[in-house]
Amino acid sequence: MSGADGCLVMCSSFPCATPENGTRDTSPTIVLDHGDPTMYESYWQKMGNKCNITFNGNDSLSYFANGKSLCWFLESKLEEQIKRLHKIVGNAIVDNNYIVVGTGSSQLVQAALYALSPSDQLEPISVVSASPFYSAYPDMTDFVRSGLHKWAGDANLFEKDGPYIELITSPNNPDGIIREPVVNGEQGKLIYDLAYYWPQYTSITSPANHDVMLFTISKCTGHAGSRIGWALVKDKEVAGKMTKFMEISTIGVSKEAQLRAGKILEVVSDSCLDFTLENFFEYSRSLMTDRWQRLRQVVTDNDIFFIQNYPRQYCLFTKDVCESHPAFAWLICKGGEEEDCEKLLKEHKIQTRSGRRFGTDSRKVRISMLSRDEDFNIFLKRLMTIKGCINKK
Amino acid sequence: MSGADGCLVMCSSFPCATPENGTRDTSPTIVLDHGDPTMYESYWQKMGNKCNITFNGNDSLSYFANGKSLCWFLESKLEEQIKRLHKIVGNAIVDNNYIVVGTGSSQLVQAALYALSPSDQLEPISVVSASPFYSAYPDMTDFVRSGLHKWAGDANLFEKDGPYIELITSPNNPDGIIREPVVNGEQGKLIYDLAYYWPQYTSITSPANHDVMLFTISKCTGHAGSRIGWALVKDKEVAGKMTKFMEISTIGVSKEAQLRAGKILEVVSDSCLDFTLENFFEYSRSLMTDRWQRLRQVVTDNDIFFIQNYPRQYCLFTKDVCESHPAFAWLICKGGEEEDCEKLLKEHKIQTRSGRRFGTDSRKVRISMLSRDEDFNIFLKRLMTIKGCINKK
Repeated sequence: MSGADGCLVMCSSFPCATPENGTRDTSPTIVLDHGDPTMYESYWQKMGNKCNITFNGNDSLSYFANGKSLCWFLESKLEEQIKRLHKIVGNAIVDNNYIVVGTGSSQLVQAALYALSPSDQLEPISVVSASPFYSAYPDMTDFVRSGLHKWAGDANLFEKDGPYIELITSPNNPDGIIREPVVNGEQGKLIYDLAYYWPQYTSITSPANHDVMLFTISKCTGHAGSRIGWALVKDKEVAGKMTKFMEISTIGVSKEAQLRAGKILEVVSDSCLDFTLENFFEYSRSLMTDRWQRLRQVVTDNDIFFIQNYPRQYCLFTKDVCESHPAFAWLICKGGEEEDCEKLLKEHKIQTRSGRRFGTDSRKVRISMLSRDEDFNIFLKRLMTIKGCINKK
Repeated sequence: MSGADGCLVMCSSFPCATPENGTRDTSPTIVLDHGDPTMYESYWQKMGNKCNITFNGNDSLSYFANGKSLCWFLESKLEEQIKRLHKIVGNAIVDNNYIVVGTGSSQLVQAALYALSPSDQLEPISVVSASPFYSAYPDMTDFVRSGLHKWAGDANLFEKDGPYIELITSPNNPDGIIREPVVNGEQGKLIYDLAYYWPQYTSITSPANHDVMLFTISKCTGHAGSRIGWALVKDKEVAGKMTKFMEISTIGVSKEAQLRAGKILEVVSDSCLDFTLENFFEYSRSLMTDRWQRLRQVVTDNDIFFIQNYPRQYCLFTKDVCESHPAFAWLICKGGEEEDCEKLLKEHKIQTRSGRRFGTDSRKVRISMLSRDEDFNIFLKRLMTIKGCINKK
């Protein structure tokens, strides 16, 4: 049994989350299981009332939006600001793409699966994603036992002939890696989940230009509570089917959320162009850089975990060579295969998500890097005590 | 061929939508196909800034709501105002019920189907509703070819033994009838869609008290663009599964829409208690009464359509005997079975929804009674000309 394993067993009986002054830490468990992006509150607080939006009682009663989009419930203000921001950041080609708005990008993943699944097949189409994959994909694909599509697991192990859909998350959730398709079959249809392809997380190396690309305001600006995502779709028929999905599923998307998202994206774009405003991406990037440096220092110090390094790449947006600072830390216990990293951290009152949920093993955990400052500080402090645990042996 | 048929053929070649001054009506088709509730704009205009709500940039970033509800994304302000309004109106028992919020009641229908479908059966459970049923139910049940549930059509014709789910819409969409379950099998699970059980449409005869009851702000206050519905659910496990559905489907419901809905419901409740405010339900009821009287007059005059009468019942809310004024008119052509009422009205530039979509025949159409005044007036004017058409024969 390795030293780290020994620690796990010891910690299990004698939790080590004891501050240096010796008093027992009675504060609640820090929840870093979800990627709840409350880190961004500090930026929006600084912006004061620049993003304020007021709704009057007689605004937006209709199901229909004011635009002329194929997506009949898409507000033109949001459409305009989505296009503007992508052009300013340079992370995706928007011209000649249809925009479909969704109640978060979760709904758009399902809409894309619906639109890309053949309707004339007896068997549901296989849906794959390379492990470690976003933990929600299997449930999204299978929760109502659809006859259109079926989760088929790790794309690296997929060997079936015939049609399939591959979900490519890039940068990847949970591990922050830049990804390409792995199956490369002749009958593959690809959905690019680009939720994290923004300059605070990774270098923008070229404007993405794929058939179906998904984005969400949750991870771009931090407004997860609004539930706004959007798809950029090349093919008219696919965009039409995705719109139909949204129509049957929820008869469109909240107008309040769309209009507020339009306002927020407008201010983010403004902040990139107007030097009297604090640039949103620079501010967020500097927060992430600081957090990642501090986390790496703790991981180096306690020497029982491993976090991978990311390549430094030239970013077209910042016009500088930058390292990635993913929205999640993908922490790997150096111990043997029997190690349960989620359990170890839970004993130290840090709630994370086990690698098992992402199609891999329990030596790994995903930890949100997007919590509020106070929670992030407590997290690091508790993580440090795990080293203390080894020292006590 | 009946007179009405003759009219249909004649109108097909020579559209009759010609105003009395003889000039051709070149204005666009009036769309009364959807139940878009823009009629309510006039009330909310009158209320000025009483419903105003402002969102600051740093409001509601989190996925999580501020409440302690089983439904973890339900805002406590909305929960409180839903309970308050039901108590004031007396249309549903809320105590000892769980509240689950949805992106409109459409999503809640699907969540309820998910929660009530057995997960241990090889065959999908049959889902039925008595004809004429809401036209979206078949698509909602079957659009992703779920293995959990399957649309089985008209509840009146359902004879299969074993488990089933019956959707009971009361007052019914499209025909405004107060409904009870019709299958009454031993293994039936019931979902009550009570979107129209509000005093502007029908008498509140008793507080509804069923296992699963669905409501929507779209048809209560007219704010369809917000996409806010709610379920009152007796059983904790069912409410938990519905919440799980919402979590996988859209990771909750827009916070902006929830908070604005909370504000709107608050003002509606206030208007029922504060005599300095115009009572929302009285105002809306008087609009509906006027529209229904005028529609009935036109239908009597042109004598080629039929609209049913509704029983007058004592309303616990208005404390008066009232007639129903449904959100849709269910218009029946007096012609033979080959009559296509939707086509006839379309030729007169009135877009409606054919009875075929509601599981019945094309002699019937559903017409929204909730359009803006100007559209309702044009609708009646055009409907009148259909009589002119017969007279020309």
